[in-house]
Amino acid sequence: MPVLDEDRLFPVDGHVRGIARRLYHEVRHLPIISPHGHTDPRWFAENEAFPDPAQLFVTPDHYVFRMLHSQGIPLEALGVPRSDGGAVESDPRKIWRLFAQNYHLFRATPSQLWLDHAFENVFGVTERLSLETADSIYDQINLQLTQEEFLPRALFERFGIEALSTTESALDDLRWHKMVRASGWGGRVITTYRPDAVIDPEFEGFAENLRLFGELTGEDTSTWDGYLAAHRNRRAYFRDVGGATASDHGHPSARTEDLPPEAAAALFDKMRTGTFSPEEADAFRGQMLTEMARMSLEDGLVLQIHAGSTRNHAGDVAAQFGRDKGFDIPARTDYVHALRPLLNAVGRAQGLTVIVFTLDESSYARELAPLAGVYPALKLGPPWWFHDSYEGMMRFREMTTETAGFYNTVGFNDDTRAFCSIPARHDVARRVDCAYLAGLVATGRLDARDAPEVAYDLSYGLAKKAYRL
Amino acid sequence: MPVLDEDRLFPVDGHVRGIARRLYHEVRHLPIISPHGHTDPRWFAENEAFPDPAQLFVTPDHYVFRMLHSQGIPLEALGVPRSDGGAVESDPRKIWRLFAQNYHLFRATPSQLWLDHAFENVFGVTERLSLETADSIYDQINLQLTQEEFLPRALFERFGIEALSTTESALDDLRWHKMVRASGWGGRVITTYRPDAVIDPEFEGFAENLRLFGELTGEDTSTWDGYLAAHRNRRAYFRDVGGATASDHGHPSARTEDLPPEAAAALFDKMRTGTFSPEEADAFRGQMLTEMARMSLEDGLVLQIHAGSTRNHAGDVAAQFGRDKGFDIPARTDYVHALRPLLNAVGRAQGLTVIVFTLDESSYARELAPLAGVYPALKLGPPWWFHDSYEGMMRFREMTTETAGFYNTVGFNDDTRAFCSIPARHDVARRVDCAYLAGLVATGRLDARDAPEVAYDLSYGLAKKAYRL
Amino acid sequence: MPVLDEDRLFPVDGHVRGIARRLYHEVRHLPIISPHGHTDPRWFAENEAFPDPAQLFVTPDHYVFRMLHSQGIPLEALGVPRSDGGAVESDPRKIWRLFAQNYHLFRATPSQLWLDHAFENVFGVTERLSLETADSIYDQINLQLTQEEFLPRALFERFGIEALSTTESALDDLRWHKMVRASGWGGRVITTYRPDAVIDPEFEGFAENLRLFGELTGEDTSTWDGYLAAHRNRRAYFRDVGGATASDHGHPSARTEDLPPEAAAALFDKMRTGTFSPEEADAFRGQMLTEMARMSLEDGLVLQIHAGSTRNHAGDVAAQFGRDKGFDIPARTDYVHALRPLLNAVGRAQGLTVIVFTLDESSYARELAPLAGVYPALKLGPPWWFHDSYEGMMRFREMTTETAGFYNTVGFNDDTRAFCSIPARHDVARRVDCAYLAGLVATGRLDARDAPEVAYDLSYGLAKKAYRL
Repeated sequence: MPVLDEDRLFPVDGHVRGIARRLYHEVRHLPIISPHGHTDPRWFAENEAFPDPAQLFVTPDHYVFRMLHSQGIPLEALGVPRSDGGAVESDPRKIWRLFAQNYHLFRATPSQLWLDHAFENVFGVTERLSLETADSIYDQINLQLTQEEFLPRALFERFGIEALSTTESALDDLRWHKMVRASGWGGRVITTYRPDAVIDPEFEGFAENLRLFGELTGEDTSTWDGYLAAHRNRRAYFRDVGGATASDHGHPSARTEDLPPEAAAALFDKMRTGTFSPEEADAFRGQMLTEMARMSLEDGLVLQIHAGSTRNHAGDVAAQFGRDKGFDIPARTDYVHALRPLLNAVGRAQGLTVIVFTLDESSYARELAPLAGVYPALKLGPPWWFHDSYEGMMRFREMTTETAGFYNTVGFNDDTRAFCSIPARHDVARRVDCAYLAGLVATGRLDARDAPEVAYDLSYGLAKKAYRL
Repeated sequence: MPVLDEDRLFPVDGHVRGIARRLYHEVRHLPIISPHGHTDPRWFAENEAFPDPAQLFVTPDHYVFRMLHSQGIPLEALGVPRSDGGAVESDPRKIWRLFAQNYHLFRATPSQLWLDHAFENVFGVTERLSLETADSIYDQINLQLTQEEFLPRALFERFGIEALSTTESALDDLRWHKMVRASGWGGRVITTYRPDAVIDPEFEGFAENLRLFGELTGEDTSTWDGYLAAHRNRRAYFRDVGGATASDHGHPSARTEDLPPEAAAALFDKMRTGTFSPEEADAFRGQMLTEMARMSLEDGLVLQIHAGSTRNHAGDVAAQFGRDKGFDIPARTDYVHALRPLLNAVGRAQGLTVIVFTLDESSYARELAPLAGVYPALKLGPPWWFHDSYEGMMRFREMTTETAGFYNTVGFNDDTRAFCSIPARHDVARRVDCAYLAGLVATGRLDARDAPEVAYDLSYGLAKKAYRL
Repeated sequence: MPVLDEDRLFPVDGHVRGIARRLYHEVRHLPIISPHGHTDPRWFAENEAFPDPAQLFVTPDHYVFRMLHSQGIPLEALGVPRSDGGAVESDPRKIWRLFAQNYHLFRATPSQLWLDHAFENVFGVTERLSLETADSIYDQINLQLTQEEFLPRALFERFGIEALSTTESALDDLRWHKMVRASGWGGRVITTYRPDAVIDPEFEGFAENLRLFGELTGEDTSTWDGYLAAHRNRRAYFRDVGGATASDHGHPSARTEDLPPEAAAALFDKMRTGTFSPEEADAFRGQMLTEMARMSLEDGLVLQIHAGSTRNHAGDVAAQFGRDKGFDIPARTDYVHALRPLLNAVGRAQGLTVIVFTLDESSYARELAPLAGVYPALKLGPPWWFHDSYEGMMRFREMTTETAGFYNTVGFNDDTRAFCSIPARHDVARRVDCAYLAGLVATGRLDARDAPEVAYDLSYGLAKKAYRL
């Protein structure tokens, strides 16, 4: 019995499964467009071997260590580095065994699908992971990691990646991207402009970030106009040097504002001098989304909004381990009122693409599909984070398609730090979309003659077009 | 390959599909009860031919033009009239071609089902609409429009409509309804009392509307008592002259109030003189829902509440094109606290029917089914607007039936301006309900012997009873 | 045609149904763990016959009388006792007939499944309930009620109950639990510590309750320290005398607080003296959840939070009939911000179990699964109240499993006052879980070899472990 079911995620009815299989057959080997994610460009710049199975699959993957932690396993035991210098487990085999021993926790989760897929398809593992098989699988993977064909660039090619976007802070010097380009290697690895550190006044070190932002761009970031000019400058740098076609913004809410210039300048002054209320900080972030949208009209970068995560829910984890340690929790998020200022300003402009993501599925049918189904500039990003799963994707399609159609969505994002999961994630998305389309065909809601084109668009065409890749 | 699948919307499993088919066979030809909608009574009064395919299917249908606009097509190019007198496309064939060329945008949307159904069943079209077939289908439809059997009354009869409610402002003179009645034609076209223009102090021209309301009713609408008397008077007019059995209220929220008479009178005074805050306007609308419910106890009109739409989201569209142009977006809506004053006042009264509609599906299982499952006066309206679709109807049943049962729901509303879509919409509703019931039977949740009665009630009986038709 | 379908609630596809059947076959006869509910311990203490069918099935079951009332049947006609002494129907046969005549209202509701199951499996009824069969079924049940094998203890044993928790107020003397223990009967009936009456300052008679609380515990409940000591004392009493392994808290919101001791003491003083705002009362309830969690760390009681019900929505019903009369309506509930103080205080502590229940399904995937999927102390309670149903359970699994897995959930609670429904409810839960698991297996999301273990855990193992039974 192989670990992966060849027909996984397909409808159970034989007839509908047949439709899904045929659709999937046409798209399964299409190149991968990965227009948003968090892989490390250094991998492709240096092309060095990944260190060991634990560091490849456990320690950096918040999906994995959060689930293990939820059952009482300390983050330290999983080798998650402490930002305060505290000791953590450093023996990768020990970490791997602990992971393997608790692999049952991942039953029916997307992590299990991704991991099993990577074990089997990338490393040729044919046994199920468990305490019994932990060591042999560790050895099997570990041995391969140093081989030429398992180096980052070789995997990139083997995965069939046509374009891969990473995400860098506006303060990043893009050295790894430059190194990739200078290397002569043909893989298309591009950056994304992520200016949270210089837009969110509540970001750690905001004042210092602003100073550095001025230094990097040669603009006077102590004035509103200079600050905007710095963004323009840096966006151009990201586009020209890093190949960026998009910016990305991770805000606690989807709030936007469209203040008159003087009011915006006055608000910026409060941010700059650190004399602001939480409400004013929120307003400023909202103003900057609209400013970014206006710059997008000039320079063509696609604007992505990832809103609605309550970051660092556990204060002690944030203090000891830093950001992105599994304690970011979605919260209810309004889009109708929040996006109105931005949409009233530029939502009907030609040539602008704003892609909005949500962690609040209750907004799919109620707010986001109706908005994307009428504003020319607005498109719906794919199911994000906790919703990047079979059920999450099905709910997304079922709750958005009838109002927004397919052509106001933008294909799939893997949004991952886990490089080896990229083929797995795209495979899951393609399977689920084909399963969904097969259901539509079988119930007379989609013409069988149109389904292959839609499958192609969802798997490949829409991402390429929406992200201008 | 015909455009419509004979088994569309039925379950895919052969056994369950068989159950659905048999249930549907019993209800598919039942007369249509259309107790709420927005067709134009003038059509039935004058019985003139519809002008052309574009004006029949594209220009007045906000489902259609909003989707086309979402992909960058200007509303002007679709012939949507500008309220500011700006020029718009006037060649119906050009509009039709643009529509046909972009017909793929409607894949898997309810609009496609409705349009295909009308093309095929009303006009005998057997090809799929596309740029290639645009002209021939245009000609085929256009030719028929002038024929006797395609005039509004003939279609009304051919559609098997037993009763059709339109919706008129409280200030309407009901001339078309009078003309229908005077004509001797047997079709039952009745009105609905929609007093938003004289209840919502934020409605355009509210002060003038109040004055006119006084003039029409001979009551002194500058006093609270006179204002209430004017409503009583006008409700009687709508009932006696227009055959109304219901009133309808489109409010931004479901808020209700039950103020002491003096407080209500004082609040009315603020509305009348235009010296109110938004909060006070909202309170007044809420007070009026309870007043309307009290009048319903007297005169037997069914009270409909359509709450939760954020109207005119795009300010420039509202300014250039006016209301109802696709930019009305649902928002989160509370019912538990909002309806409490009204329900505490009259929710357990005998003889009252309050039908509540929502655009916020998260309230189905959490709020609306529990409320309708205990308050005798409260019933659940069918899935509304963006949720009037296969998935929307399935979610409605799945999220309300277990708590509210079938008998606290009221059958189907087509709620449409698109006359030719009426049979299509009722057909979709009947199919989906039969599909849902078949699933219940197949999983032992509904006795097979009870299912036909329930199918009949959902398709016909409940609407007739709830709306007193 | 039997009333109950042998394959009820299983997937319709033959192959998947086969998987579900095989899984169910392994768990259907497992003992029942009922770790949370509202049966009356007096039944097991006195072991007297249940009075009549109406008092067994209609009058005390709010699911039943609320649905009947929603169609206009007065609560009085169903024998629901008036707390104001007003007259109510006292003829059980009349009540039964009214119930039977309206049994169609329960089509496709969980109540119908539970009732039919109890009629058939407990009392051997083989006809469907209707007006025609009302009398014969009444007689059949009534006759058996006085027989030895239908007394509470005999039914308890026949139902295969391994442990049954009731819920008592902190002010209860636990006399019935003592009597059960003293009787020598082997059935395990334990209590749960429910201190709402002495924690919620808005509870009827709070000041008097506090006084009594001091008297019962010998602590000075006029001081914060004495009040806390009284809780410690009473928790020990419930644990030692009533076998409690858990406490339970029914709050309007999930709000928690973690105030410094002086601030908490000052807040308590306001509660004690009745000089508080609603906001302060809410803060105090929130503070007490964190205090209870801290005591749980000491004494090992599991902490249950049942939040989000708007109690006594209809004021007149509350006045005439008292609490729990079907007019408790869920409302939107936030967990992310609400639980943060408690989780930051003790959410990562070893040895603590906090089980959270919700009536707001929109929080499953968005808030609760992400929280339970990372905080070691937090577990998800099963679908509660209106969501204790086929669709409710399916949605729970579909919306929580991918993020929280199975092992951050705690099995099933029947949470019932209706003793005869206990086997029915656990049977429904086991069937739905097996149906869900079968779907996972058939779509390659769960290894067929793991499914039986998961089915066992969901049906039995998790409840036993989570509740320390």
